[in-house]
Parts: sequence; C-alpha cells; structure tokens
Amino acid sequence: MQCLWLENLKLSYRDNVPVPTPHPGEVLVRVRLAGICSTDLEMVQGYYPFIGIPGHEFVGNVVDGPTDSNWIGSRVVGEINITCGECEACRAGRNTHCERRTVLGILNHHGVFAEYLTLPLENLHRVPDSIPDEAAVFTEPLAAALEIQQQISVHPTDRVLVIGAGRLGQLIAQTLALTGCDLKVVVRRYRQIELLEAYQIQSLAPDEVKPQKWDVVVEATGSPQGLILARQAVRPRGTLVLKSTYHGDTQFNFSSIVVDEITLVGSRCGPFQPALRLLETGQIDPTPMIETSYPLSDGIAAFERAAQPGVFKILLKPPVP
Amino acid sequence: MQCLWLENLKLSYRDNVPVPTPHPGEVLVRVRLAGICSTDLEMVQGYYPFIGIPGHEFVGNVVDGPTDSNWIGSRVVGEINITCGECEACRAGRNTHCERRTVLGILNHHGVFAEYLTLPLENLHRVPDSIPDEAAVFTEPLAAALEIQQQISVHPTDRVLVIGAGRLGQLIAQTLALTGCDLKVVVRRYRQIELLEAYQIQSLAPDEVKPQKWDVVVEATGSPQGLILARQAVRPRGTLVLKSTYHGDTQFNFSSIVVDEITLVGSRCGPFQPALRLLETGQIDPTPMIETSYPLSDGIAAFERAAQPGVFKILLKPPVP
Repeated sequence: MQCLWLENLKLSYRDNVPVPTPHPGEVLVRVRLAGICSTDLEMVQGYYPFIGIPGHEFVGNVVDGPTDSNWIGSRVVGEINITCGECEACRAGRNTHCERRTVLGILNHHGVFAEYLTLPLENLHRVPDSIPDEAAVFTEPLAAALEIQQQISVHPTDRVLVIGAGRLGQLIAQTLALTGCDLKVVVRRYRQIELLEAYQIQSLAPDEVKPQKWDVVVEATGSPQGLILARQAVRPRGTLVLKSTYHGDTQFNFSSIVVDEITLVGSRCGPFQPALRLLETGQIDPTPMIETSYPLSDGIAAFERAAQPGVFKILLKPPVP
Repeated sequence: MQCLWLENLKLSYRDNVPVPTPHPGEVLVRVRLAGICSTDLEMVQGYYPFIGIPGHEFVGNVVDGPTDSNWIGSRVVGEINITCGECEACRAGRNTHCERRTVLGILNHHGVFAEYLTLPLENLHRVPDSIPDEAAVFTEPLAAALEIQQQISVHPTDRVLVIGAGRLGQLIAQTLALTGCDLKVVVRRYRQIELLEAYQIQSLAPDEVKPQKWDVVVEATGSPQGLILARQAVRPRGTLVLKSTYHGDTQFNFSSIVVDEITLVGSRCGPFQPALRLLETGQIDPTPMIETSYPLSDGIAAFERAAQPGVFKILLKPPVP
C-alpha cells in the first residue's frame, strides 16, 4: 500500500509497504482522510524516537476484523492509545495512561498516513452519517481540546485566556466559547485573528494581556515565551492549563506558584464521544480551519506546507480503491 | 518594649522599641508565646526584603483596641495577611491574596517577636480555654497544613506521599493522617522518624519511594531535589502539592506534566477555625514537636538553635508583665 514512512528523521513516500494484518481483537481500517498535527511535525524534527508510519488523526471504514463483529463497513474514528487493560492505570479507568500503551503513529504502532491501519475494536467510535469526513477527521484534536473541561471546571463567569491560535488553540477556543465565559485568545498572526473572528472569538496581542487577571489560562503554543506569558496572566488561585509539550527543560520560578497558589494542569488526550456529539449538532464546525488537502502520494509536500508558520489544518487523502 | 529586629540581614535584640500604636480598627495584642518557622530563618538569610520585627506565629491577649469591642482581655491567635477589603481579590473572597496586603512580620507590618503587636480586629480568632498556649501557638502553621485539603480532595483510598518531615512537613502529615489515606513520609533524619512514629505515621527513605505510584504528593522541603523526587513519585493524573517556596528558578521538564496530565498546586496560608477545632478536640496535638522555648531576650540564640538541621519548633517567650 501507499504510505508515508519516518526513519532517521527522514520522511519518505513509499508505495510498496504491505497492508498491516490485524492482531486478534483488532480491525483493519481503510483511511478516508487524515490530518497533520504539530506532533507529526515534531516527530520529523526528531522529538520522538519513531520508525514507521506516522499520523494519528483520521476517519476511515472498517474493512476487516473479527467475523462476529458488526463493525465491518462502519465509518469510524479511533482513539489513539492502544492499552493493555490490565495495568493499574487501566484498571483505575485511566486507560490513556496505560503503563504498557502503544500510541497510533507515535509510539510502537503504525499510524494513519497510509491506505490502511489497524486498531483494537474498543478504540473505535462510529461516526454519525451527518458528520462529513472533513469534520470527522478533527475528532481526535477536538477531543483533546475537550480534555480541558474534563479536568477542570470552567465557569460561565470566568475570564479565560487562550495563548496560541494555531491548529489546537483554535479548537480549544471554540470549545471554551461554548461555556459563555469571557474568552480572549492571544494571537501573533493576522490569519489567526481572521479565523477567530469567523467564530466570533476576540483576540489580543501579547502586549495587551493584563497580568494577574485571568481565572483560567490555557497555554497552547508549546514555547517558553508562551509559558512565561501564561504565568504572568493567571490570577492568584487561578488555573493554568498546559496543552502543548515543550522541548527540553524550562527555567521556572516555583515560589511564585506557591505564593499565588496557582493550579497548573497538564492536559493531553480527551474524550471522543463528546467531540462527536458537538460535531453532529454542529455546535463545533472545524471545517473553516481546513487549509487544503493533498493526495497521500504528495505527503512530503503536505508536510512542508503544514510546517509553514500560520498554516491551519492540512489533510491527506489516500487513493479511493 | 523588648523585641527582635531585622535589618541589613542582621537580627538583633532591642529593649527600647516603642510599643506600637493600633490604627483604627486594629487592636494591641500582648504576645504570650511565639514560634520560629522556616520563613523567619529565610528572612534572616535575605530571601525577603524586610526591616523591622519579624515573626508571625503567636498566641496573645488583646490589651487595647476599639472601646466598643468585646475583645479586650481575650486570648487570641491571628491571621497574618492584613488586607484592604476592597480590591478584586478581597471582594472575590480570596483575601489572603489581597493585592495591597501587608503580612505580619513578613511584609510591611511588624511581627510577633516582641512584647506587643497590632492586628486588625477581623484577623483575630479567640482561642478556646482548653487549648494551652503551647498548642495554640501552632494554629498558623496548622492552618497552612490544612490549606492542602481546602484546595484538593484527599480521598481515604489515596496513596499520599509527604516529602519532608521538618516543622511544616510533620503538621502536614498529621492532618493528612486524619483522612485515613495510605500515608508515607520521606525523611532524612532519625529524629524525624521518631517523631512520626509517635504519631503512628510511617516513614520512607528517599530511595524507597516507588516512582509514578502516588495519587497525591506533597513537597515540603523547598529544595530542588525534593521537587524532582515529588515529580518522579506522582502517578499519571495525580496531584503534586507545593507547600514550600524555592530559591530562584528551577530547571523543570513541563512536557512530562502534559504527557502525564499532572496537576500541580501551589499552597500557602490556610483557614484558622478548622485548625482551632482540631486543636480543641485534641485530634491534632502538636506539642511533641516543641524542641524548647527561650526567653525573648535570648532570641538570637533561639534563632541559631532553630537553624540547626533537624530541629523542630523553637518557641519565644516575652516577659510576663
């Protein structure tokens, strides 16, 4: 099959990789559409050691699997953590933190920038017919955005600041706007302002952020500057959500966290069903975030485009059989 | 009056300082007993810019104040943040984070290592007769320990690790033990183990701490090594409470906070009334933590003793008039 292949920090296009064979309990999924996210770009930069097919945002059809399953033919999205079900984290219901997990396209499991992928049955979610592929492909990052409200309470009266208006920051802002909170988003690029305006979300320049005034601050840039601005912005006893990873260590003043009694929350993968509900009702429409789509065979060019500053969602489309 | 005086990183004993005059709304309190805490020691090291009388842990008697008040003669303890009542933090009920606060013996308000101090009426709490001075003097640090459970839920089924078994760590361990949780305390000194054993609390050496296994970890050492051990110990989606301040910046890997979805909570001053209730019922008896007491006039020697490694609570006793 066709796929993208990452090895030794080099991304290549291949058309001769065998279709993967599902393990027991797994299904084979034909990819209809896949999305490139910042984690994929960072993997090419070498921030994660991975050899194989990258990619984890997808919508597809189940084409093979356990014969007693009624999933064959279903259009699905899939959770990216492949878990053991037996470790302490799994047994405690924290299966995204499975101690023996593999992660679709990120850790020891081939990903979705291919014609086919395999996933355990329990990772699948059926996509309602009314959600087009171009919206369904956002289910995974939308779920990640919703993880914030899975972890903390955002009150309608809260002043909420999102720092960063890229691919993930936009989705975070869209979900937080649904709470009725007083929301502002820190932007660096005019295109980001335009997209936020399409969602009636107000933006601020970094130097317009009032310090120590925000009940909740979400850091979605992954940069040390973003982290510093977030710390300055959050009020005493406020909550600072970290939604992006950072390269290496960061110098940080923890005394100020103690004196101001700040709560700092790391946030990663989120719940798929609420994401699908919001897409089905149309309360979230991520499709204006689509920059363009490329055939899978032009995946290298697609990655180059996605890596350019200010570019929103780039999609990859495998050939239709 | 007699007092200790801090100026230019030098602590001195003085016996000719005028008795302070209460401002409107304030009372004059005669100090019965005061306690030396690590913050006081750090102030002498120059970690806070302060000129005047240090000290903030006390029990005393109201001897002067508004004539219509029924506080004269009462035995009291007092909250240490002197607040404006008008700023956004005060109006929102977060008065310990008052934007214009002064802090007893720490920030722009003379402290308690003296014969007399002044405090606003609203900072006072009457001490029930059954609580001896030697227990009441622990109200402020006990309240600070209770702030943890004011901020986070500690479940009876939680595995809880306290790192540090000094003056504050011991009080934290005693309050957490009341929840029925599975509690262990990381110690470095034999005396700390002995004191914990008197409270039937189990201790661990740092190298006995299982990594990624603890639901709640409380860092009470204020050292970078303590912070590193705390981060290693807390499980994914667990909570790390920072209860001590740190000197300068610390190198920290924030990506691991995101990937493991850790919640990090800074914690400072706490509620006095619950502390007094626990002292009144005897559910907390801090008096075994008393190392010894010195007359106020021997305050310099008392500070030297308190600064020695592994020394628990040193008390200062002003002359009885």
